[in-house]
Amino acid sequence: MIPDAQRDLLENPNYGSLGTVRPDGTVQVNPMWFSFDGEHLLFTHTVTRQKYRNLQRNPSMSLMVFDPERPYRYIEVRGRLLEAEPDPEGAFYVFLGKRYGNAQQDAPADRADRVILKMSIDKVGGQ
Amino acid sequence: MIPDAQRDLLENPNYGSLGTVRPDGTVQVNPMWFSFDGEHLLFTHTVTRQKYRNLQRNPSMSLMVFDPERPYRYIEVRGRLLEAEPDPEGAFYVFLGKRYGNAQQDAPADRADRVILKMSIDKVGGQ
Repeated sequence: MIPDAQRDLLENPNYGSLGTVRPDGTVQVNPMWFSFDGEHLLFTHTVTRQKYRNLQRNPSMSLMVFDPERPYRYIEVRGRLLEAEPDPEGAFYVFLGKRYGNAQQDAPADRADRVILKMSIDKVGGQ
Repeated sequence: MIPDAQRDLLENPNYGSLGTVRPDGTVQVNPMWFSFDGEHLLFTHTVTRQKYRNLQRNPSMSLMVFDPERPYRYIEVRGRLLEAEPDPEGAFYVFLGKRYGNAQQDAPADRADRVILKMSIDKVGGQ
């Protein structure tokens, strides 16, 4: 579902901009590490933060990633939260930290609250 | 309302990630040029696109900008559409094109449909 011309934007360790909807119907955007497994987008998160509360109420997610070298080239993936899998050792956080360039990435202090957010890929846009 | 430590993120010509809410309650994120006049965030847009339709129904907007050199440093500004001022000559588009590095920026072909979106600054976050 991801066009070949935009695949590199998800495969390279670019920062993504994740949109969610707050309980009052307003919008929130945060920078996020992510990984693309060929079928879903995966994020590390905790169960104590606002984004997690947003997603419990409205599972809609949109991830936008632009090419840092040519930012008019971008992909927007819209989908929804499919599952939040516990990651109590923070192993997926460590995986992402390494993906984003920190070879010595340690598990985070808040690892007991960590989850892996699995997002569906429902619509793809961009240019 | 913008902390001094994050002000450069709005004053420099960084690409922003603008979140809006679609009529079905799902979220949309797009890369955007913007300008900060010290009080509002300003965007060029057209009245024919989805984002404009989204904002007619739900005026909530969130602009997130990260530092391209140190992307964990970012600002998120949440607010709402205050006004969409007609820009039938595309003058604000030209202003932004020059701000983003194209000294020869011409007016866009769709200038008759162009508007300047003026966004309030209601909440500021980031790190």
